[in-house]
Amino acid sequence: MKELSELMGYRPNIKVVDATLRDGGLVNDFFFPDDFAKALYEANVKAGVDYMEFGYRADKTMFDVDKFGPSKFCDEDYLRSVVGDNDTDLKIAIMADVGRCDYKKDIIDKKDSAVDLVRVATYISTMPSAIDMIEDAANKGYETSCNIMAISNAQESDVKIALDALGQSPVDVIYIVDSYGSLYPEQIARIADLYLEAGEKYGKKIGIHAHNNQQMAFANTIEAVGDGVNFLDATYAEMGRGAGNCGMELLLGFLRNPKYNVYPVLKFIQEHITPLKESGVTWGYDLQYLLTGVLNQHPRTAIQFTKENRKDYAEFYKEIVVQD
Amino acid sequence: MKELSELMGYRPNIKVVDATLRDGGLVNDFFFPDDFAKALYEANVKAGVDYMEFGYRADKTMFDVDKFGPSKFCDEDYLRSVVGDNDTDLKIAIMADVGRCDYKKDIIDKKDSAVDLVRVATYISTMPSAIDMIEDAANKGYETSCNIMAISNAQESDVKIALDALGQSPVDVIYIVDSYGSLYPEQIARIADLYLEAGEKYGKKIGIHAHNNQQMAFANTIEAVGDGVNFLDATYAEMGRGAGNCGMELLLGFLRNPKYNVYPVLKFIQEHITPLKESGVTWGYDLQYLLTGVLNQHPRTAIQFTKENRKDYAEFYKEIVVQD
Repeated sequence: MKELSELMGYRPNIKVVDATLRDGGLVNDFFFPDDFAKALYEANVKAGVDYMEFGYRADKTMFDVDKFGPSKFCDEDYLRSVVGDNDTDLKIAIMADVGRCDYKKDIIDKKDSAVDLVRVATYISTMPSAIDMIEDAANKGYETSCNIMAISNAQESDVKIALDALGQSPVDVIYIVDSYGSLYPEQIARIADLYLEAGEKYGKKIGIHAHNNQQMAFANTIEAVGDGVNFLDATYAEMGRGAGNCGMELLLGFLRNPKYNVYPVLKFIQEHITPLKESGVTWGYDLQYLLTGVLNQHPRTAIQFTKENRKDYAEFYKEIVVQD
Repeated sequence: MKELSELMGYRPNIKVVDATLRDGGLVNDFFFPDDFAKALYEANVKAGVDYMEFGYRADKTMFDVDKFGPSKFCDEDYLRSVVGDNDTDLKIAIMADVGRCDYKKDIIDKKDSAVDLVRVATYISTMPSAIDMIEDAANKGYETSCNIMAISNAQESDVKIALDALGQSPVDVIYIVDSYGSLYPEQIARIADLYLEAGEKYGKKIGIHAHNNQQMAFANTIEAVGDGVNFLDATYAEMGRGAGNCGMELLLGFLRNPKYNVYPVLKFIQEHITPLKESGVTWGYDLQYLLTGVLNQHPRTAIQFTKENRKDYAEFYKEIVVQD
């Protein structure tokens, strides 16, 4: 049982990472209104958020720049147009997917960049490429983190090998990622133990990135906090792929560090997220996501179900419960 | 840490209680469509649910029968019109509020009633009246349970006195109730310990009734399951006062007992809850409920905010964060 006293105190080592533009961008191809990123940046500064992830640095030879908003590519010019010299305590992050980022070319030296943290996302099978990206970014002067995705479908022995490989890399933070929103807090506690053991051994910090398919994103995140995980991803109004993520407004309500302030988050949601939802951008918990979560499946079928405005949950369940 | 092996097995002692008509009725004054209760009853039978709570047995001299649907009063005639002789494994429950039920007159002998379980709801301050109601119902032949409401605002010493008093009463089940949706799993674990200790001492079963203000209703319920709590309240599509309750569809997805079947739940939601929502009946998680939950307040201000179709969350926060 966790120490109740800790609920009254706080751990200064905790870092909150806003992933709204990045995970949220997956639901609208990163086409946010013009003033959105700037207002979000200002809200994060006021709210005391530690890192703001602006999106992906995707390879423009692979993705059509006309088909995505600027957070898909996170050009330095775009970042500078929002953060200027970023004379604040808020650090800037971008994500680089294994296989979708021409990192040797597109990730420039830190001294010339607005970025502080390069977050590498990988499956276990592409770990060697991820480590090459991490080494490249670390050599260029960045903080680095690694999201090992889809671990709920991976063998524990493979996860251990990945943790050892990352342990020996220059990565600063290793993330527990519940890609399918299929994990319960009891399982997160176990996974956190495994990651924290590796973190202890190799001097790495541990983070968590949760999805809300079973309304567990916030619960799993605070379970991880209680277990000793320090890097916490959240998004405003839970905006993110499919069922969305851990809500920033929920997380800041839980954390007791007086540096965090929920008021600017509420204000931003009211002024920028509500209109976005009203304009038809759709995300968040619904039964189709619960079902892919329970079944530990990628939510792509549920996303399709949502896009087609289907509401025949029972039929959908029959479609996905046994797949030929 | 809880035993992972238990996630694969199941405890046959677990009982699932559907509270849709009762807690859900609080959001539409119990005016459900004509076929709703019957279809819900049939869905519960098929889903393997253990108890179905039909509503309150409110005093008709206190409440105008024209202003509420039949689940406010749960006449025996109404119950019989839905369940007939109830030749099923599903048990029938009603709730009786302290101070709002003329129980000596309106709760008839079990042998003449469709009801199996009388659930008494009380604040700590009215515990003597609650115990009188429990004794009355037990003497008439019913199973009985007691919901001690609003414990997040009560002194632990008072909760202990209430548990001792209930322990010495004929009550069968004592419920942990998170009336304001303000509790986190770490706190539920602690409260469950306290209740289970009393349950052990006096031979009582322990239940949980959660609210979803902080998206913790399901998380708190499965935390309680892991702690040894056996009576679990849930509602279809989380229908319930304010932010709603623990979703039946979430809970049955978690429980591993093959007697439970989520398919009829999905079908009922699709055919009966979706139209209800489309007709304008409103409940479920939103920021105003998160805020009253974080602040450990009754959700009445948030319910009013919702009724007025307000979306100015930041202003609402300022209104409730400090109350003169």
